[in-house]
Amino acid sequence: MISRVSDSFDSQTMMQTFEAKLTSVEHGRVEITAPILVGSKQQHGFAHAALTFALGDSAAGYAALSTMAPEYEVLTSEMKINLLAPGRTGPLRAVGTVEKSGKRLVIVRADIFDGNEKIAILQGTMIPVKR
Amino acid sequence: MISRVSDSFDSQTMMQTFEAKLTSVEHGRVEITAPILVGSKQQHGFAHAALTFALGDSAAGYAALSTMAPEYEVLTSEMKINLLAPGRTGPLRAVGTVEKSGKRLVIVRADIFDGNEKIAILQGTMIPVKR
Amino acid sequence: MISRVSDSFDSQTMMQTFEAKLTSVEHGRVEITAPILVGSKQQHGFAHAALTFALGDSAAGYAALSTMAPEYEVLTSEMKINLLAPGRTGPLRAVGTVEKSGKRLVIVRADIFDGNEKIAILQGTMIPVKR
Amino acid sequence: MISRVSDSFDSQTMMQTFEAKLTSVEHGRVEITAPILVGSKQQHGFAHAALTFALGDSAAGYAALSTMAPEYEVLTSEMKINLLAPGRTGPLRAVGTVEKSGKRLVIVRADIFDGNEKIAILQGTMIPVKR
Repeated sequence: MISRVSDSFDSQTMMQTFEAKLTSVEHGRVEITAPILVGSKQQHGFAHAALTFALGDSAAGYAALSTMAPEYEVLTSEMKINLLAPGRTGPLRAVGTVEKSGKRLVIVRADIFDGNEKIAILQGTMIPVKR
Repeated sequence: MISRVSDSFDSQTMMQTFEAKLTSVEHGRVEITAPILVGSKQQHGFAHAALTFALGDSAAGYAALSTMAPEYEVLTSEMKINLLAPGRTGPLRAVGTVEKSGKRLVIVRADIFDGNEKIAILQGTMIPVKR
Repeated sequence: MISRVSDSFDSQTMMQTFEAKLTSVEHGRVEITAPILVGSKQQHGFAHAALTFALGDSAAGYAALSTMAPEYEVLTSEMKINLLAPGRTGPLRAVGTVEKSGKRLVIVRADIFDGNEKIAILQGTMIPVKR
Repeated sequence: MISRVSDSFDSQTMMQTFEAKLTSVEHGRVEITAPILVGSKQQHGFAHAALTFALGDSAAGYAALSTMAPEYEVLTSEMKINLLAPGRTGPLRAVGTVEKSGKRLVIVRADIFDGNEKIAILQGTMIPVKR
């Protein structure tokens, strides 16, 4: 299960662009950590919302994948993010969890932290797709 | 109004990382276009959801900014994306529009296209912040 | 197609509680209208967000159903509402449309009006379920 | 704080229509319970999504109100619901919590239960408005 998640993670070039690392993989719970690179900022010098989104979406997606049968891959169907505070210093840490794992849909949440401060929350839907 | 939007856009390093261009700015409507770079992909070789999100969120945010008084900057408060189809070839084109521009909140939508195919829709909230 | 939508609508007791009427059914587009009853208000005397949600969700759901094969019924998987203005006088009119109709998921939007004022927008996902 | 929440709750006619009760009020956490009435159903005889939404939205809104200064009332700005399972028997129990309470926006979540089963999760934004 861990290698399936890490193999998929390693093949996402966007995660490499953000220098993101898979820092924990459990059944139904995945953590991803990434720095706030010079090239990942918005106009005030904080982490761009797309970085925060990318980490939360990926952590949630891999949490979903960790609960799916081996012949499936995961796709994001929809995702909603509420931003609580700017990501100022990093590294950012995203914790994705599974709320309900069904055959057709997997409902997920994610929380993003900058140090000890929670800076964003996500809620969405992943779909299993046959490889 | 156009220079205010383009100055802010140019200071977002994330937009440079994605090689995104501001291709149209009107009052309440902004278009952003970007290629699907080698470094912007997910595990199947399609555009990463975070790229699609980044373009839609930025187009919607700048559409909001184009309706705000000059002393304000814009921040994303929350955003929801539904993905309709993978971004396969690019360039991707995001069209952000304003649904309601208030003093405290600006409600926005965005549609993302890959060629003629609509691949994602977004709906969210921008907040004006004093510079 | 119209009778399929109206039969399902008529069997929703919640729509009767709200005295809602199906006022237009086309392929991929459905309108529902309802008064703001004395029993449908929030603490300031305006339409409760749950009324606005109910109408938008149902209009979107029936728009989705109108595009599905006859052996399917429709269920809401997820829905997001942004409220733009209070519903003051009514009747409220909800217009649901289909953004993409797939075999596994149907992506929808809805707009809610109080007279000529747009008071809410919705975006969500419907799933086809075999009867 | 408790009387402020219960006074506002009691003035919502929609809560009376649904026979909803405020069953717990703490700083930043509110519970609401309601039966699945004959008049609150969808076409399969389950709880209508609008009932589930109403309870979650209200529990989240009152959780937000419990953290606001006394001169403020609360309005829903936006809310997203993911439905995990149908509400079959009831009573339904909604637990609203505050993720971040700011001066301009309060970010909230809610979980809805039917017995021991979690049937829906919500995430959204409340805004404080001067009375």
